[in-house]
Amino acid sequence: MRSRINPSMPVSRRALFALSVRAGIGAAALTMLPREVLGGLQVGPTGKRAGLLARSARPVDFETPVELLDSFITPNEAFFVRGHMTAPAVDAQAWQLQVDGEVRTPRALSVADLRALPAVSVTATLECAGNGRAFFDPPVAGIQWRKGAVGTSRWTGARLRDVIAAAGGSAAATHVWMAGADRPLGAQPPFVRQVPLAKALDADTIVAYEMDGQPIPLLHGAPLRVIVPGWEGAYSVKWLQRLTAASKEHDGFWVASAYRYPTKRVLPGATVAAADQVPLSGLAVKSLITRPLDGAALPPGRVQIAGFAWAGESRITRVDVSTDGGASWAAARLTGPVHKFAWRRFEHDAVLKQPEVHTILSRATDDRGVTQPVVPRWNPSGYLWNAPDRIDVSVGGVAQTAVTPVASHEPGPSNAVFDRACRVCHDEDLSAQQRLTPDGWGREVDKMIRWGARVTPEERGPLVEFLASRWGVR
Amino acid sequence: MRSRINPSMPVSRRALFALSVRAGIGAAALTMLPREVLGGLQVGPTGKRAGLLARSARPVDFETPVELLDSFITPNEAFFVRGHMTAPAVDAQAWQLQVDGEVRTPRALSVADLRALPAVSVTATLECAGNGRAFFDPPVAGIQWRKGAVGTSRWTGARLRDVIAAAGGSAAATHVWMAGADRPLGAQPPFVRQVPLAKALDADTIVAYEMDGQPIPLLHGAPLRVIVPGWEGAYSVKWLQRLTAASKEHDGFWVASAYRYPTKRVLPGATVAAADQVPLSGLAVKSLITRPLDGAALPPGRVQIAGFAWAGESRITRVDVSTDGGASWAAARLTGPVHKFAWRRFEHDAVLKQPEVHTILSRATDDRGVTQPVVPRWNPSGYLWNAPDRIDVSVGGVAQTAVTPVASHEPGPSNAVFDRACRVCHDEDLSAQQRLTPDGWGREVDKMIRWGARVTPEERGPLVEFLASRWGVR
Repeated sequence: MRSRINPSMPVSRRALFALSVRAGIGAAALTMLPREVLGGLQVGPTGKRAGLLARSARPVDFETPVELLDSFITPNEAFFVRGHMTAPAVDAQAWQLQVDGEVRTPRALSVADLRALPAVSVTATLECAGNGRAFFDPPVAGIQWRKGAVGTSRWTGARLRDVIAAAGGSAAATHVWMAGADRPLGAQPPFVRQVPLAKALDADTIVAYEMDGQPIPLLHGAPLRVIVPGWEGAYSVKWLQRLTAASKEHDGFWVASAYRYPTKRVLPGATVAAADQVPLSGLAVKSLITRPLDGAALPPGRVQIAGFAWAGESRITRVDVSTDGGASWAAARLTGPVHKFAWRRFEHDAVLKQPEVHTILSRATDDRGVTQPVVPRWNPSGYLWNAPDRIDVSVGGVAQTAVTPVASHEPGPSNAVFDRACRVCHDEDLSAQQRLTPDGWGREVDKMIRWGARVTPEERGPLVEFLASRWGVR
Repeated sequence: MRSRINPSMPVSRRALFALSVRAGIGAAALTMLPREVLGGLQVGPTGKRAGLLARSARPVDFETPVELLDSFITPNEAFFVRGHMTAPAVDAQAWQLQVDGEVRTPRALSVADLRALPAVSVTATLECAGNGRAFFDPPVAGIQWRKGAVGTSRWTGARLRDVIAAAGGSAAATHVWMAGADRPLGAQPPFVRQVPLAKALDADTIVAYEMDGQPIPLLHGAPLRVIVPGWEGAYSVKWLQRLTAASKEHDGFWVASAYRYPTKRVLPGATVAAADQVPLSGLAVKSLITRPLDGAALPPGRVQIAGFAWAGESRITRVDVSTDGGASWAAARLTGPVHKFAWRRFEHDAVLKQPEVHTILSRATDDRGVTQPVVPRWNPSGYLWNAPDRIDVSVGGVAQTAVTPVASHEPGPSNAVFDRACRVCHDEDLSAQQRLTPDGWGREVDKMIRWGARVTPEERGPLVEFLASRWGVR
């Protein structure tokens, strides 16, 4: 599933949507965005540019291709998009942020109220916890992100602690619950996440209203988005409508079941109970080569290898680069801006003389002495993939055509239950990128039944069989 | 496709085959060995022990599981078997080795003639060039060997140079062609390989008649097998029936098309013409952890990690072991016997305290300073896989069940052309382990048509479509 957005959408269709859905603040809802619109978009209702990798039409999930990740600040229109549900209708003027729970004076704040608080800018790298999930073996259910569910922006807003203080502060709270206004698909539980109080009150945790100097675009959480810098992206709740100071853990799906990571390393393919997992927090040490590009054809001679490395709340102290597939390594220079929670630029000048294909890797180390491993920890949700990054370049010859290991999505036999019960909420693209065992499909189907998919007990077995035969492990 | 031999074969059936096919020298042909016999074998006509991994019934291909590779000498009954065709009928008393071509006095030698020449013993590690093919991405056609198409034995026989000398020697030869008596399936070209003169005349290149002190067993090439130590296994031609001193390159399939490796590194998935490839020779630097076993449950505390490392004609100088998935490494001890062309034992004492799963890797370096890479060179035939070896062990808890990433072979829709044209020579097991694109299947089908598969031009397209839909890339 490596479909790219192409500019084939008819103009009339584009115009129609431009009328009803304006980009950015104040835009109407992006409900049930039809696949044709995503596939045909140039600059339209999503505010995203052509060339992004559409990972799912419903929910809207865009990956940034590596060629658009070579700048320290990722342009808004190229920034990756991860949503679990549908974007809400947004009217920034009327937006109200509820601040309640264990606070002295619960209140509702407008965007203007937020702008009246001291403004803070934080330059932070956001990465989806599932970035790189496609590389895990055995495969894991979920959006099959490869390299580009990551980006860096300058976020501006009010400190979250100032927002809590505006409601009188809290003496008893241990956590802050954060609720987004995402509109669930089917019976999906509402999107509520929590952050421990210490991180919530950190001076760099903010309720942002600007992304790279612009009002936050609709798909990035307009008008208000929490930014929890250094932690995996799902903490940075979009379309923020409620902050609850709480003295206990939230028990909803997005805290109690999702975005959890095993307390102990497990065997690949193991099933792990939620109780044996804890919420994710910081990101893993990781690097990405943004120059040259994978598959590039280069003349023999000197080449600059460059990219970014990040480690969540830790500081990058070293990046090594290999031009022989990881048999030998050399230290790269660390350059460019230094921000506590943002990626760090690395550059390395190499000489590639031999006219053949060269496999280039990057491997980062952080200030705790932690280095990217050869084999990242497999975990049941496929989070925090952080093997050394790898590209192949062709020197001194005609560029060769590589075969993408992930097959394109071919039409195949359909199934009445799938069409009726599954395609209500999402398209076939989401199913077609999975490579799951019958047990794995069974777990996904059961989750969907809990979320409202209308599958009878009699239909469950044949549906799982259909899914596993069509999109199974190979 | 990780089927194991099970002892379910009825005794009567076993007895029947024991009558017609005796193990070792003098046994009758193992023609068209039915799958049931392979699947049900304990110690029978193949001379192999239970527990081997049957990769194919026709041709007979056995992989040694790692638990049987912990000894310096691999027992004959556990040694991996790679054949392209069917073993011939063998009568050791009547066997004649023709020595001809650019020699002064072409002649035929009996096994007794060979035994009359000075006897030499060479302890050598043999590895199939395709060992580890299953790990390449994108997938490559062929037997999907994982770790165990490797083993070490003590081979005894006459020097190949003494055999050539017995035919008067050769002034003009540049190569020696080596022909096996394998019986082709369909119209497969006869199995002829060649070795350059210098390697052929090396003091350690022999025509062996014993394997670990026993007459060479039938499936290992009885009664005579060339041993070309340090080079990939297909040079060590089994059932040797002819040696031809030649002043030019052999132009048969097994030299001109197969067992070739690109002169330049290529992009993964690339197609490379045979002219841009050269015959393989030595093996890549590589290591295998044989203790503990993958998936083992261990008490917390000290554990000895041990295994073997080899590098073809090069000497192993260093093995490093990681217990954290390759983030950090420590040097292992090199111990045990030292033979020029045999693997070297390594041992490392580690302390694994945390009750969780630990990912252990081994990484060897040879006397040329070459280290196992993180990313082995992809090549169109999937040869010489040599990433660091990896196991996962569970410390201080109940052993967890890991899911094998390769799915078992499920029955599925059949196809009349496949049944008629393909299953004449091999079983479905061989097809079911492939994961090929339609183009990849097209190339395989075309090769098989050249080898006699009766597929009409009209049938080719639908057959390729069937194969790609049933056993395609995911």
